[in-house]
Amino acid sequence: MDNLSISRALPLANVHIQDEFWSEYIRLIREVVVPYQWEALNDRVEGAAPSHAIQNFKIAAGLAQGEFYGMVFQDSDVAKWLEAVSYLLETGKDPDLERLADEVIEIIAKAQQKDGYLNTYFSLKEPEMKWMNLAECHELYCAGHMIEAAVAYYRATGKKKLLDVACRLADCIDEVFGAEAGKLHGYDGHQEIELALVKLYHATGTNSYLSLSQYFLNERGTSPSFYDIEFERRNRKTHFSGLNMVRDRSYSQAHLPVRLQETAEGHAVRVVYMCSGMADVAAETGDEELLEACRRLWSNIVNKRMYITGAIGSMAHGEAFSLDYDLPNDTAYAETCASIGLIFFAQRMLQIETRSEYADVMEQALYNTVISGMSRDGRQFFYVNPLEVWPQACDKNKNLSHVKPQRQGWFGCACCPPNIARLLASLGRYMYSTKDQTLYAHLYIGSQVDIELGGHQIGLLQQSQLPWKGNVHFELTVEGAVEFTLALRIPKWCKAAEIRLNGITFQTDDVLVDGYVYINRVWQSGDTVELNLPMPVNRMKGHPLLRETIGKVALQRGPIVYCMEEADNGPNLHQIVIARQTQEQVQYHAEVLGGLQVLSVEAYREQTDGWDNLLYKVEDNIRTESVTATFIPYFSWANRGRGEMAVWVRES
Amino acid sequence: MDNLSISRALPLANVHIQDEFWSEYIRLIREVVVPYQWEALNDRVEGAAPSHAIQNFKIAAGLAQGEFYGMVFQDSDVAKWLEAVSYLLETGKDPDLERLADEVIEIIAKAQQKDGYLNTYFSLKEPEMKWMNLAECHELYCAGHMIEAAVAYYRATGKKKLLDVACRLADCIDEVFGAEAGKLHGYDGHQEIELALVKLYHATGTNSYLSLSQYFLNERGTSPSFYDIEFERRNRKTHFSGLNMVRDRSYSQAHLPVRLQETAEGHAVRVVYMCSGMADVAAETGDEELLEACRRLWSNIVNKRMYITGAIGSMAHGEAFSLDYDLPNDTAYAETCASIGLIFFAQRMLQIETRSEYADVMEQALYNTVISGMSRDGRQFFYVNPLEVWPQACDKNKNLSHVKPQRQGWFGCACCPPNIARLLASLGRYMYSTKDQTLYAHLYIGSQVDIELGGHQIGLLQQSQLPWKGNVHFELTVEGAVEFTLALRIPKWCKAAEIRLNGITFQTDDVLVDGYVYINRVWQSGDTVELNLPMPVNRMKGHPLLRETIGKVALQRGPIVYCMEEADNGPNLHQIVIARQTQEQVQYHAEVLGGLQVLSVEAYREQTDGWDNLLYKVEDNIRTESVTATFIPYFSWANRGRGEMAVWVRES
Repeated sequence: MDNLSISRALPLANVHIQDEFWSEYIRLIREVVVPYQWEALNDRVEGAAPSHAIQNFKIAAGLAQGEFYGMVFQDSDVAKWLEAVSYLLETGKDPDLERLADEVIEIIAKAQQKDGYLNTYFSLKEPEMKWMNLAECHELYCAGHMIEAAVAYYRATGKKKLLDVACRLADCIDEVFGAEAGKLHGYDGHQEIELALVKLYHATGTNSYLSLSQYFLNERGTSPSFYDIEFERRNRKTHFSGLNMVRDRSYSQAHLPVRLQETAEGHAVRVVYMCSGMADVAAETGDEELLEACRRLWSNIVNKRMYITGAIGSMAHGEAFSLDYDLPNDTAYAETCASIGLIFFAQRMLQIETRSEYADVMEQALYNTVISGMSRDGRQFFYVNPLEVWPQACDKNKNLSHVKPQRQGWFGCACCPPNIARLLASLGRYMYSTKDQTLYAHLYIGSQVDIELGGHQIGLLQQSQLPWKGNVHFELTVEGAVEFTLALRIPKWCKAAEIRLNGITFQTDDVLVDGYVYINRVWQSGDTVELNLPMPVNRMKGHPLLRETIGKVALQRGPIVYCMEEADNGPNLHQIVIARQTQEQVQYHAEVLGGLQVLSVEAYREQTDGWDNLLYKVEDNIRTESVTATFIPYFSWANRGRGEMAVWVRES
Repeated sequence: MDNLSISRALPLANVHIQDEFWSEYIRLIREVVVPYQWEALNDRVEGAAPSHAIQNFKIAAGLAQGEFYGMVFQDSDVAKWLEAVSYLLETGKDPDLERLADEVIEIIAKAQQKDGYLNTYFSLKEPEMKWMNLAECHELYCAGHMIEAAVAYYRATGKKKLLDVACRLADCIDEVFGAEAGKLHGYDGHQEIELALVKLYHATGTNSYLSLSQYFLNERGTSPSFYDIEFERRNRKTHFSGLNMVRDRSYSQAHLPVRLQETAEGHAVRVVYMCSGMADVAAETGDEELLEACRRLWSNIVNKRMYITGAIGSMAHGEAFSLDYDLPNDTAYAETCASIGLIFFAQRMLQIETRSEYADVMEQALYNTVISGMSRDGRQFFYVNPLEVWPQACDKNKNLSHVKPQRQGWFGCACCPPNIARLLASLGRYMYSTKDQTLYAHLYIGSQVDIELGGHQIGLLQQSQLPWKGNVHFELTVEGAVEFTLALRIPKWCKAAEIRLNGITFQTDDVLVDGYVYINRVWQSGDTVELNLPMPVNRMKGHPLLRETIGKVALQRGPIVYCMEEADNGPNLHQIVIARQTQEQVQYHAEVLGGLQVLSVEAYREQTDGWDNLLYKVEDNIRTESVTATFIPYFSWANRGRGEMAVWVRES
């Protein structure tokens, strides 16, 4: 099988984001989140649960005394921080930060064992259990994150120290795992190594890394179960007693070989990390069966198991998918990391086949769940992103005990904040891609791009008013006249896109393919393309099989899903019914949460007058009062104290 | 303080139920449930989890070899069976059944230890832990059930063997617990002993039993916590590791002294058993503070924390109350036993103060949740009684894993079936009460009553067409002419009750007090009272603070709450919207589930046409089709295979 001809993301260094909306987020990552995370990793954040992650590496490196502390996957936090740092360094020099990273890399390199093994939990705490409990213990998951960090740092700085560590680690893994007799015929309980090995293959050209990734994917879910075999081998020792990781195969998508999986089952982050690896391997090998499995799982997720905010995972138990059309708003898990993983998966599918549905979901997850995951000051984070919150119930009803009505400082299991950091720090990787003579624009974020296409230097200046206005303006810089195709995505939320080429309306009918308008011409410097995306407030309905949204609508404008908050509407949001035949008012409020477009809608609210002490009574005229319901972007909720929130609202 | 003047329930022997609706249930208890439970207690039900409860007693009695098996409260199943048997014997001779009971009592008496101690778990399994773990181990709870059985058996048969066992057991407890130095200053983790001791006091006249009950109630929730003290005393040993019974004080209502409790917190069954004991002690002692606490907790439960079916307990975690107005339909716990306990509490309050709200709730719980708890053949049982079920979600979404879409044969923790049996076998105790010269009729169930009132023999024949028709007919038999008051409850669901006395309309305006019509006169044999209770279909609304019912109605006719089932309406019940301005059709279907009144309502159903593969889309015209929605009584659901069910329905 040959590799597929795919469109490739532009190197991060070639995309300079200058955007009114996103530059602030990236500044937050650089100036607040990454430094804050550095403090957290070093246990210097007051009042937050200790991380001990750097200390674990120091102890393993022989540079400090003490014992391992933290989750079995604590190492991955350091790796994700390093990966975020790498992206920051790739987009802007920062010698202090680079020195900090170099110091950490020194420690990591010292913590690596002679045979390439690298995992502080097992080195320090259970050396005799190395490679004995893949089902539960995240050994390859941690390795995967370290490999991702290494590739990113190498690309950012050209420095090979961590890349060498990663290669020795991957080689060590290759010695241990594989189809050959004497090797372990296994795979990790948490997918991650699969996509990481493909990155390492790209960075080094070493085929064995691609083969090893392929091996892990092919081995998963085969019979007899590797989890059973290793369970017996370690005398039935378990690490996480509550979660049944060994027996509940679908938790880690080990219930069936990956090619036979029809639906997204189990832990949501694992599913999308696995799918990302599957898409990577399919792209490199042309494995149509694997690609078809990717398409099938994609379709199941986005058409039957995804919240309108681009969130996935319907239940806290197992942080997992449940079943088709089961998307409870209040007990949702909707983990920030899962939406980030969904973006990883979407980008890979988009590179394989340029269909706007992939970019649409990427945008949906990014503008809603991902940035909802972080407070406006970059200091607090959501792990769980429900679509409806009643804070008092979160305190008392144990079905909601995973739902926090306010963002938290740092977590005992701190996967989400560094994941947000590495995604936003590398946002430039998701905006454009190229294939042959085509430059694709997937996301509309103000930026200056400089690339080589077919031997020509091309500069593209994008100015975007998203998400508040749908005006996007491109200006080209080329040397002389260059023929190539500029492909612009038409977002799903826009039904009346207009394009003007050098000020003249451009007819898109014949050149709109799978949601992209292909403009092929001989371009000259100063050529402009205006993309005008009208942005009415859309009242979105859920599929009639969705029990939680029936009889309700969600307001969406452009990519932004809106919600009501107690801060604007008072408590008991469930009493509000918006009027169907009324126009929403759209107003920019510069003073609200750093500037937001706010929606106002005529509505009524059921009253409690006349109920006295009754809990149920015979229906009579429902007493209502007219109110104006105020909606703010979902991502901005929970920045004004503790209160109710609801995305879906009844409509009269 | 003196005892209150309360109305007392008629002895069960004096109430002969002859009712088209209820006689069949009582027959089921006698002919199916109690014999079936006997088989279950003896581990002879194929396919069901073993009980081992009788065997435990045999082993403890030295009559068999083996080890204790079952829950720490397994003994209580035998006691509850004996209690049900007692009620059956009180209402009808059955020498075979009485012989069986006598044999069991022989075994129990032999299992009792010399000092009066009786509990097979501790005798057999952890003798050194007796009275060491009240927080978790149900020792006094089991004792309470044995005492209740003993009193019931004594009343039914006049035999004192088990009563003597109970007295020795109570004396033993009195030796161990109390305010005196050297005694344990404690109370049980599961209330039950409190109400049982008052029964024993009534049966024997021994004051110490009343005092001990009072002691347990007064001690609960005081500081320092008895749970903490005994926890340290037993070196922090726990019995149920998952549930935090020691630290989570509110689970067993030990967070505050009972007189200070404002809201119903924690395990729902414990709350209502406790409240029953509190009402009992208040009635005997005239303790107004305790009575006020009862009123407060009653009001909190029925006005803020009760399902329309008379079910209580909003969450599976801790089988517990959550917070005011939090009544989720699908994740409800709504345990059958909790509604039975609510009836116990209601009856006691009703005896203290004759207010129809108590009888209304008794009726509401009885006709809906309690009989929903049992299948039409008396062989299968619900522990959990949700108001909305989507069976596929119960399989896959772990928030619903406690919800069974079909009744189960017998449970590992088998509290509910014997509780249903003992309640229905003693149904006659809940129908009437007397106080001074007044005979109260609380429930309208066909029956012949023979009592002595003020030295006169009075016979009252009640014929009732409830719950299908609101016609109730009373006929008196007296010797000569006797003056007394007949007080008839006017149910909350009826707004236009009519009474005819000897065929002539009786004006109720001046004699309606707290929901009861008081008819005082000199009665003669042949006097008749007709109570005509019109029974329109009521569309019930939930209080606007109830999130789960807003925008919806529940259909209720008389005391019966209705529901839609998949068997009649197809799947996806959430798509159905009933028409507001339309009359429901009421039809008796003799062939459906033994004869039921079925409701039909014009409705429409949202269609999935035009949705293709989309999960969300911009609102356009909602495609609907006209349908007739069919509703059956809630209690009769899940008798026709596995399928969806919903009580609350949207209304256009």
